Amino acid sequence: MPFDHLIYNALVITMERGVPPLTPGYVAVQGDRIAAVGQAASSGELAPARKRVDARGGLVMPGLVNTHNHGAMTLFRGLADDLPLDDWLHKHIFPAESRWVDAEFVHWGTRLAIAEMIRSGTTTVCDAYFFADVARQAYLEAGLRAVMAQGILDFPVPGVPDPRDNLKVAAAFIDSGDNGGKGLVTSTLFCHSPYTCGANTLQQAKALTRKRDLPFLTHLAETRRELELMQQQHGLNPVAYLESLDILDSLTGVAHAIWIDEADQEILARCAVKVCHCPECNLKLASGVAPIPDLLKRGVCVGLGTDGAASNNNLDMFGEMALTAKLHKVMRSDPTCLAAAEVVALATREGARVLGLEDCCGTLTPGKAADLIIVDLNQPHLTPLFDPYSHLVYTARAADVSDVMVAGRWLLRNRQFLTLEWPETQHQVQSLIHSRGLLNY
Amino acid sequence: MPFDHLIYNALVITMERGVPPLTPGYVAVQGDRIAAVGQAASSGELAPARKRVDARGGLVMPGLVNTHNHGAMTLFRGLADDLPLDDWLHKHIFPAESRWVDAEFVHWGTRLAIAEMIRSGTTTVCDAYFFADVARQAYLEAGLRAVMAQGILDFPVPGVPDPRDNLKVAAAFIDSGDNGGKGLVTSTLFCHSPYTCGANTLQQAKALTRKRDLPFLTHLAETRRELELMQQQHGLNPVAYLESLDILDSLTGVAHAIWIDEADQEILARCAVKVCHCPECNLKLASGVAPIPDLLKRGVCVGLGTDGAASNNNLDMFGEMALTAKLHKVMRSDPTCLAAAEVVALATREGARVLGLEDCCGTLTPGKAADLIIVDLNQPHLTPLFDPYSHLVYTARAADVSDVMVAGRWLLRNRQFLTLEWPETQHQVQSLIHSRGLLNY
Repeated sequence: MPFDHLIYNALVITMERGVPPLTPGYVAVQGDRIAAVGQAASSGELAPARKRVDARGGLVMPGLVNTHNHGAMTLFRGLADDLPLDDWLHKHIFPAESRWVDAEFVHWGTRLAIAEMIRSGTTTVCDAYFFADVARQAYLEAGLRAVMAQGILDFPVPGVPDPRDNLKVAAAFIDSGDNGGKGLVTSTLFCHSPYTCGANTLQQAKALTRKRDLPFLTHLAETRRELELMQQQHGLNPVAYLESLDILDSLTGVAHAIWIDEADQEILARCAVKVCHCPECNLKLASGVAPIPDLLKRGVCVGLGTDGAASNNNLDMFGEMALTAKLHKVMRSDPTCLAAAEVVALATREGARVLGLEDCCGTLTPGKAADLIIVDLNQPHLTPLFDPYSHLVYTARAADVSDVMVAGRWLLRNRQFLTLEWPETQHQVQSLIHSRGLLNY
Repeated sequence: MPFDHLIYNALVITMERGVPPLTPGYVAVQGDRIAAVGQAASSGELAPARKRVDARGGLVMPGLVNTHNHGAMTLFRGLADDLPLDDWLHKHIFPAESRWVDAEFVHWGTRLAIAEMIRSGTTTVCDAYFFADVARQAYLEAGLRAVMAQGILDFPVPGVPDPRDNLKVAAAFIDSGDNGGKGLVTSTLFCHSPYTCGANTLQQAKALTRKRDLPFLTHLAETRRELELMQQQHGLNPVAYLESLDILDSLTGVAHAIWIDEADQEILARCAVKVCHCPECNLKLASGVAPIPDLLKRGVCVGLGTDGAASNNNLDMFGEMALTAKLHKVMRSDPTCLAAAEVVALATREGARVLGLEDCCGTLTPGKAADLIIVDLNQPHLTPLFDPYSHLVYTARAADVSDVMVAGRWLLRNRQFLTLEWPETQHQVQSLIHSRGLLNY
C-alpha cells in the first residue's frame, strides 16, 4: 500500500536520543501516524506515496510543544506592559478578564492563538483558560493538538461566577472530552496557583485528574511574593506545601518553578514532577530565573512554554529556545550550559513528556503521530549551515516555518493556512475588540 | 514639484522625542531625504508624488541602527557554539580567520550579512573587520548605510600580515573614503581591544580619527578576564586605562562595557563616550550583563548591536530589542525598567548618535536621510495592536519587515531584494565554503 505522504530530500532531525541528522532524509506518513523515517540518496529508492513533497532546502523535525499557554489571552497582547506585577495583574488583566471574557472572546481569542502557533511551528500546546469547552472546539476545528485545561480559582472567574462550582465545571469539561480515545485534544484542568486555590480545591482537583490518569497543571513558585506568602500561611515553600497536600507526582506539571531551593528541587525530582519553563514571560514580568540547569542535573523533566500573550507577548517557541539557551549561560557564567541540541529536545521530546504525551509525539518515530514541521533553510540568516541544532536555537525564528502537519494533516503549506481562515479570524478579532470599546489601532 | 515617493495610510512612528504615533500617517521623500512627515485623513489631501505606496496595515519607522557588527564573520555563523570562550576564540575563530579570511571571503561574507540586515530592517550598521575596503564596496553596491571600520590588532591579521603596518592600512582605508562628502559609508577604524592593541597603537589610532572627526571604535570591558588583565598590567580598570591614554571622548564608541564599576560609569558619562550594547552575544558567550539602566540614568548614550554572527548567531535587531527590554527587568527585579518605547529609541535614534550620525538618520525628520522601514502588521502575532512600541519590542521579528529604504532608494520591496541578488549570493557563499573544505550541509 502506498504511503499517504512522503516528505523527502530534507534534512531530518528526529530528536530521538542518539540519532544524528539524516541528510538527505525522508519521513513517510500513513493515516495520522509516522510510517517510516530514514535516509535515502534519491527519492527513486523510496516506496510509492500518494502525495510526495520535495523538501529540498528544508529541515524536517518534530513540531514544537508549548507546555504552558493561556490561548484566549492572546487578545490582551500588548494591552499593558512594563508595569509593576501587581498593577499589571490587578489594574489591567483581572479587570479586563472580568469585563470582557465570555464564550465569544474565548472562541476568537483561541483561534487567534492557534493561527500564531501554527505559523510558528507549534503542533502541541497546553492551554489553560476559562470556557475550556469553547477553546477545545477551536483546537478540534483547526486540527492542532492540545492539552486543554479548564482554569480553577477560588474566586469568581469568567464562566464560573460562583467559585463553589469550579470543580463541577472542570469535571463536566473533562468528562465531555474524548480522553479515552486518545484524540487530538486531552481535556483536563489547571489550578491557577496555591495562593488562588485553597488546599481543599487543590486536593479535589488532583483527585479528579489522578483518577482519570490525566495531567494536573498549576503555576508554582513564580514570584518571591508567592514564596513569602506560602511561608507565612503554611510555614512551607510552595513546592513543599503542594507535597504536603499529596499533589505532586509524575502527572503534575508546574509552570515557572523559579523560587525553589535545593530541598524543593529534591522534592520535584523525587516526585517526578514536570516543569514548564517560560523564560520570556519570567524576564518580562521580572519574576526571576528558574534554576533549570540544576533541575536537569537532578533528572527533572523540563519543557518550554510561552505563557500567555498578555505577558510574553508572543507565542513563538523559537524565541523561548533562543532565550533558554542564552539566559542560563550568563546566569552560570558558563557558555557550555544548555547546548543547542539539548534545548531543541526541551522544546520537542521533553515537552511531550511534560504533558504525558511521550508515546504520542515529540520525536519523529514510526508509530507516533505525524506531528512535524518544515523549516525553510533557504534564507540569508540561515546561511551557511554548519549545525542544524545551533540554527534552530540561535538563528531560526517563527517565520521560517513553512509547513506544519499534525496527525497526518497539513495545517500550513508554504506558509498558507489550510484549516483556518486568517482574514476572517483577523476581521472577527478586530470587530470583537472594537465592539468592547477597547482602544486599538 | 511632486515628491519622489509618498508612503501613506501607515501607522508612522517618527522616534522624535515627544511625537506620538501618527495614524493614518505619511512620509514624503525627495531625492535621498525625507521631505515631509505627518498625519492625513486621506491621500487626496496630500501633495502629488511620482511614486505612491499605500502602506495600509504597515508601520513606518526609522530603519534600525546596528552599532556593532563584524559583517564578514557571518560566514562563521554556527561554526562553533556552546564552548568555553577561550576554546571558541583560540581553537575555532582565530584559526578559521587566519586560514580562510581573504578578500573573496570578505566580499561574500559582507554581502551575506547585508542580505540578512536588509531583510531584518537594519538601515545603518557599524561593521568592524579586515579588508575594510572590500566590505565598503559591498555596502556601496547594495546601498546600505555603514560605518565601515578597519580592524586593528597588534598581531598578524587577515590582510595585514605585519602588525607594524596596521595603522598605515587603516589610514589608507580612511583616506580613500568619501567622508568629506558625508556619503553612504563612513570609513574609519576599530581597535580590537586594550588587550590586543598596545597603548601606542590605541593612541595613534585615536589621533588618526580625532584629526578627521571620525568615530573611534573598540571592544571594552567585555569579560572578567579582560578586567583582571588590565588591573594586573596597568593597575586600572579597562575604562580608566583608556581614559589615562586620553582615548575617551564623544566620538569614542565602546562595545559591551560589561565589567565596569561606578567609577568607570562616571568616566564614561563625563567623557560622553558612546556604548554599544550587544545582549544576545553577551549572554551566549556568558560574558555578563552590562549595567545599561545605570548608564542611561547617568545620561550615557547607548545603542544596540548584534555583534558578529560568529557569536550571536544572527543579525536581527528585533531580537536585541526584545532581549534588552526583558533582560534588565529581571536583573533589576523591576518590570518597569527599559520600557518598550525607550528600547525602540536605543535601536534607532540613540544608535545613530552612537555612530555620530544623529544629523543624518535615526528619526523620521524632514531634512534627514530617507532611511525607513515598513513593518507588516497584518499578521497573527501582531494582532491585536494596542501599543506599537510594545509590538516592535516584544512581538515583531525580522521577517515582519516588508520594505526597506535607505537614502531614498528601496532596497527591499514586499520582502524582495532590489539591490542584491540573493540566489547568486547564496550560491557563491556555498561554493566558497565548500571550496575551503568546510563541512556544511
